Amino acid sequence: MAKNIFYAQSGGVTAVINASACGVIETARTYRSVGKVFAGKNGIIGALEEELIDTSKESRSVIASLRYTPAGAFGSCRYKLKGFEESEAEYVRIIDVFKAHNIGYFFYNGGGDSQDTANKVSQISADLGYPITCIGIPKTVDNDLPFTDCCPGFGSVAKYVAVSTREAGLDVASMSASSTKVFVLEVMGRHAGWIAAAAGLAKDEKNDPPHIILFPEIDFDKQLFLNKVKDTVSKVGYCVVVASEGTQYADGRFVADAGLKDAFGHIQLGGVAPTLVNMIKEAHGYKCHWALADYLQRAARHIASKTDVDQAYAMGKAAVDFAVAGKNAVMPTIVRANTQKYRWSIGSAPLSKVANVEKKMPRNYISRDGFGITPKGRDYLAPLIVGEDYPPFKNGLPQYARLKNTLLKKKLSRFSQKQ
Amino acid sequence: MAKNIFYAQSGGVTAVINASACGVIETARTYRSVGKVFAGKNGIIGALEEELIDTSKESRSVIASLRYTPAGAFGSCRYKLKGFEESEAEYVRIIDVFKAHNIGYFFYNGGGDSQDTANKVSQISADLGYPITCIGIPKTVDNDLPFTDCCPGFGSVAKYVAVSTREAGLDVASMSASSTKVFVLEVMGRHAGWIAAAAGLAKDEKNDPPHIILFPEIDFDKQLFLNKVKDTVSKVGYCVVVASEGTQYADGRFVADAGLKDAFGHIQLGGVAPTLVNMIKEAHGYKCHWALADYLQRAARHIASKTDVDQAYAMGKAAVDFAVAGKNAVMPTIVRANTQKYRWSIGSAPLSKVANVEKKMPRNYISRDGFGITPKGRDYLAPLIVGEDYPPFKNGLPQYARLKNTLLKKKLSRFSQKQ
Repeated sequence: MAKNIFYAQSGGVTAVINASACGVIETARTYRSVGKVFAGKNGIIGALEEELIDTSKESRSVIASLRYTPAGAFGSCRYKLKGFEESEAEYVRIIDVFKAHNIGYFFYNGGGDSQDTANKVSQISADLGYPITCIGIPKTVDNDLPFTDCCPGFGSVAKYVAVSTREAGLDVASMSASSTKVFVLEVMGRHAGWIAAAAGLAKDEKNDPPHIILFPEIDFDKQLFLNKVKDTVSKVGYCVVVASEGTQYADGRFVADAGLKDAFGHIQLGGVAPTLVNMIKEAHGYKCHWALADYLQRAARHIASKTDVDQAYAMGKAAVDFAVAGKNAVMPTIVRANTQKYRWSIGSAPLSKVANVEKKMPRNYISRDGFGITPKGRDYLAPLIVGEDYPPFKNGLPQYARLKNTLLKKKLSRFSQKQ
Repeated sequence: MAKNIFYAQSGGVTAVINASACGVIETARTYRSVGKVFAGKNGIIGALEEELIDTSKESRSVIASLRYTPAGAFGSCRYKLKGFEESEAEYVRIIDVFKAHNIGYFFYNGGGDSQDTANKVSQISADLGYPITCIGIPKTVDNDLPFTDCCPGFGSVAKYVAVSTREAGLDVASMSASSTKVFVLEVMGRHAGWIAAAAGLAKDEKNDPPHIILFPEIDFDKQLFLNKVKDTVSKVGYCVVVASEGTQYADGRFVADAGLKDAFGHIQLGGVAPTLVNMIKEAHGYKCHWALADYLQRAARHIASKTDVDQAYAMGKAAVDFAVAGKNAVMPTIVRANTQKYRWSIGSAPLSKVANVEKKMPRNYISRDGFGITPKGRDYLAPLIVGEDYPPFKNGLPQYARLKNTLLKKKLSRFSQKQ
């Protein structure tokens, strides 16, 4: 009997991770040699708790709608399996669940940690005599996975940030004569400045916003920053700043750690944007506004990049194709062709090499003064936001997938975890 | 010689105020009986400083692109003219500038304050023997103008908030098993809860987000709120809160005033969202995320409501039609037909009655518990976000108007203001 697939979503979700799920399920349905696709309810937790969603219960049209539905339709989780020594019971449990449901394939859709877990499951399942074909499917808005030219999820958040920067920039420009002079947008990206860098795509002409980008890769120098804000307001009339949440001082302190205390004396992490705004007000007295996009940026399927959606789908499809072709412990990757016009194809990387490597912005993508992107950085980023892929709307709102998420009947006893 | 039009943008800009400008300019170009349209550089400040933009220098296609360009293409301002007694010199100056440039029409595109100013200019110009035809063009994301069924600018921010709530809601739902349980989105609206209410349109089924809406019209009760958050997390698994920036306690204190102090002991206004998040963390220990949309929400032309765009354009067009028809000191309004299917037409209201009246949410639009909208509220709001009207994109980014904004040659000496 053809082995089933276990598919799980991991870590922070994106506007296009369900497009990868769509690629997996639609492709698996075309192969006779593979069985059904079971999705983990809340990711790998679903495997541990034997909560497996039977995607064969969903209609073809519902599965198709995953392509344009943001976030994780089966639930994701932040849960990292440790090494075999420490987490033996969990690995054994996962293999037991896989055995009980005739699962021969494990597709793990996530970032670096998830690729590491998929790699370990591949090794340990073989050691335990029930070898599972494990394929990683890349996903992270942070764009920090190695080997792949970019990560599905990044292009869409990049587009959201570039579009929002352009739009908010026009707003500040309109108001600056008598009111707001500075606007600060705080964006995600953890230790890598890719998302902040994408804001730079909004700039077509010299004085266009953003005027200042703050990267985690560049030590924050308060005085240099304040000078640059003042220069920009003098020259352009207003200043738009896009700051990565991970912006930090040379000594490693986060700028977000502003020493705010609440009424009870508890320290509050203030966020980069309000901290910068306080600095600017204090130094220059300008009226400032700021925004924190948070989940809005990574959930904004309504303004997703078509390139990103296509790549996310292709990674899901490739995972199935790879598995059927007998590959194991690999992750499909996006390979950029060395051509003038942007072209990409699918490659692969061994999971053992992908795991736990963080790809930061190359220094030559960041301008010499540290506040912008270079033409090289722009060349890398620009194609990733190209194309619109609007979801269908009804009554003014996007119509996203509603799944039944029917669970398989459990066959095993409850997993009691000792931690 | 046909009199020219002076058009000025006022106050906070919107995704569609330029659509009104487009309506004014395109319509004025069709009438032989009116001259050119001059726009105030930075709103009414342009009249005081005799900085008049000659829109006849812009091509037909550039003017057409104003329809899909957010923010204020000629610059707006926050500047309120006081009564004639206090601000006589300013009124006289404006009339002088109008005379010098053969301006016979003043179209003021703004909120309540602007309608008040337009009304005063109409009266004072007549008293000074140079009568100006003054037409107000409604604009405010806050939707708080009286007489008009809704205000251009509101429908688009409403759509942005509803779409973002739906998308971020899916994100939190995905993460809630092991990570974020509560998401708080802070939105604009000043003293009126219209924008927050619009988030309620994202809810199609009982357990859909948003689960809690906080309105300025409803006294904030911390314990009730915290109980509702806990109940929602227990029942649904997660909780999405949309909070108006103007949310306040029964004694009038803003919730945003959280008593935060920085390292120097300065009081920091924390924002509603982070304040609520701190409360929730302290009471329940849930992991929370929050977003502050700020300018992003009112500049988001990429997800504007087609209904809103059409109405904004129609208000600009009506202003010219009214003026040509000899009306004065009026504002065109949007009149909702009493039909099942949403239909609207253009009415008018005297500026004297519009000025300085703030329309808040009717209590019967807000659910009995104060945390949601009623079917009546939904019926009012729903049609305003209907329809998409995407701007053209190039290389993944919306292509917004770039105007030359050529200034007229000055004819008067510099205005020196005594205040």
